Amino acid sequence: MMTTFSFDLKKTDGKARRGTLTTPHGVIETPIFMPVGTQGTVKSLDPVDLKEANTQILLGNTYHLMLRPGSELVAELGGLHKFMAWNGPILTDSGGFQVFSLAQGEARGEGSNVGGSLVKIDEEGVTFRSYIDGSSHRMTPEDSMRIQMNLGADIIMAFDQCPPGKSSKAAVQQAMDRTTRWLYRCKDSMTSPHSRLFGIIQGGIYEDLREAHAKEITQVDLFGYAIGGLSVGEEKEALWKACGHTTQFMPEHKPRYLMGVGTPDDLLDGISHGIDMFDCVMPTRNARNGFLFTSRGKVIIRNGKYQKDTRPVDENCACMTCKTFTRAYLRHLYKSQELLYYRLASLHNITYYLRLMEEAREAIERGEYARFMAKRKAAHRGE
Amino acid sequence: MMTTFSFDLKKTDGKARRGTLTTPHGVIETPIFMPVGTQGTVKSLDPVDLKEANTQILLGNTYHLMLRPGSELVAELGGLHKFMAWNGPILTDSGGFQVFSLAQGEARGEGSNVGGSLVKIDEEGVTFRSYIDGSSHRMTPEDSMRIQMNLGADIIMAFDQCPPGKSSKAAVQQAMDRTTRWLYRCKDSMTSPHSRLFGIIQGGIYEDLREAHAKEITQVDLFGYAIGGLSVGEEKEALWKACGHTTQFMPEHKPRYLMGVGTPDDLLDGISHGIDMFDCVMPTRNARNGFLFTSRGKVIIRNGKYQKDTRPVDENCACMTCKTFTRAYLRHLYKSQELLYYRLASLHNITYYLRLMEEAREAIERGEYARFMAKRKAAHRGE
Repeated sequence: MMTTFSFDLKKTDGKARRGTLTTPHGVIETPIFMPVGTQGTVKSLDPVDLKEANTQILLGNTYHLMLRPGSELVAELGGLHKFMAWNGPILTDSGGFQVFSLAQGEARGEGSNVGGSLVKIDEEGVTFRSYIDGSSHRMTPEDSMRIQMNLGADIIMAFDQCPPGKSSKAAVQQAMDRTTRWLYRCKDSMTSPHSRLFGIIQGGIYEDLREAHAKEITQVDLFGYAIGGLSVGEEKEALWKACGHTTQFMPEHKPRYLMGVGTPDDLLDGISHGIDMFDCVMPTRNARNGFLFTSRGKVIIRNGKYQKDTRPVDENCACMTCKTFTRAYLRHLYKSQELLYYRLASLHNITYYLRLMEEAREAIERGEYARFMAKRKAAHRGE
Repeated sequence: MMTTFSFDLKKTDGKARRGTLTTPHGVIETPIFMPVGTQGTVKSLDPVDLKEANTQILLGNTYHLMLRPGSELVAELGGLHKFMAWNGPILTDSGGFQVFSLAQGEARGEGSNVGGSLVKIDEEGVTFRSYIDGSSHRMTPEDSMRIQMNLGADIIMAFDQCPPGKSSKAAVQQAMDRTTRWLYRCKDSMTSPHSRLFGIIQGGIYEDLREAHAKEITQVDLFGYAIGGLSVGEEKEALWKACGHTTQFMPEHKPRYLMGVGTPDDLLDGISHGIDMFDCVMPTRNARNGFLFTSRGKVIIRNGKYQKDTRPVDENCACMTCKTFTRAYLRHLYKSQELLYYRLASLHNITYYLRLMEEAREAIERGEYARFMAKRKAAHRGE
């Protein structure tokens, strides 16, 4: 296996960035969106579907995979790539976000709706209960690294403490300081030559904390850096203010990942603030709930107006769903709760997100990103 | 559209038959198994999956489609083929079986588990309640024909009365006589040049009734004939005795369809009794419940012994599931109730059924069907 990792910033357009991120499993053109494969599968899609949707890198959820089927088993079976038959790049999260969000009853991974679990945080790590069977588990920064190395992800995320969105400044400061201490422990135990570590910048919506933590985290020499602790309940305006404030303190020649964001418009905004990588369950989860993204805004497929609509979901989309099926048929499948619906809808939404990223990359290359963004946002509003 | 229909019996081997059935949507090599697409989709599979599994003809359920989305809507949208983007042949059942089996709380279609619905049968037709919303519906032989013509199936089934498996001889006789009277009404109202009608032979497990009804039904000049009223709760031995007794009174040069059967071994038995066509929800329903058919018998994928099993479900299978994924991964998906599992498992089981039919056809062509059947049954028992 190649162990070459690199990030090449090819062009900027305002703060928007066009780059390539090289991993042993392939080259990723940025800006990019990463579909979420929580339990070793992007819900309802197979690897061929993912390739057809132009997926360049997947996100796997450490929390879910450590509990089922277990990271040792995945390692024994040859790693997550082989296990799920996905030969492209994979990024795994640290598991921390799910552990903490379960404490607040709002897991971001796909498929975990068990809230109110008992979570205890101390300086060493976190103790929590399994969402599957209630069994008690312990996770330290060292455990998270070991598990992610077992999974064999190309990009491994540092184990951080992500406080709730409306935390006090003191609580955010405390989580941020611990995140820094944990980062050093993560780095020390990240021994695999097949993976690279990303650090995570916390600091909530507080500009001074964001600046301080960005400086602390980027002082550690890592392959890339993420912005965590956003999209956790704060206002959109506060999110972009914090994001924009943070990116200015991040190194230019390393990839920047905004975690857990967001809508198509959010991705456009993120790119305008200099973000290179995104992940979110929104395209797949919304698909399953009947919300389809199109170049002219959302299609709520259950609506009666689609009953006899023989058009594809999006006339500008080249995905298998749009090439093959009508809105009328998708509505029928959705109302009938047919399994085929979930795949067709997920395939479309993922294709839509990834095509949007492709168009954004092209716009940056042309030096027309601002114009492109304004145009797409207007189209999304139906203008 | 071509309106050519024909059946060509190419070879016999004992009672087993090798034929070709031509319809406007394509040629079907028999013996053949028809995957069941209850609600305008074979659960979890798309048309490309079905083609890859070597599907030659699908079955659609009139009962489900008339209630949702409604046959007029399907007609307006261009018919069932276009609606579901399946350009191969389709056979629709009459709706009668589901109506009657719902009265007994055991619908054979995929996805209808609502029992105890009120069903009233009279000479004119049947009154029943929708399994979706409890609304009252009326279906006569004329309605069934109209609905099936709306759907635009290549092969349309006569509206028959199928009595429960353990009915008294008098009750079977009554249902059988009514089925004959209804067949004449069906034939009179079957006006589409794009479809052909199959009659259904009833008579339960009573040999004299089977003989009498086979003679009555086959006296009507139709494109093909089906054996109904079996696989409804009677013993296997009684089923095959009744089936074998019936086929001898069926015309040699018309296709013979045994409705609602069955396991892989049942298909082998049916072929040995001179059956050309089969349908059953078993491969797809069993797939979803974790039962996978293989050349060496059943794989119950939840079993712990598959936890680290890196073999495909069936080493002799060329389906995408077996070419791509391990038993260990499928077990993980099944236990995690992941949507991808249902598709991968259904694709495999349907492929298995259709490959078995292909091998049966080859065995008949070689004049070795009996030997082939014995060998396959032994393999299914794990011998």
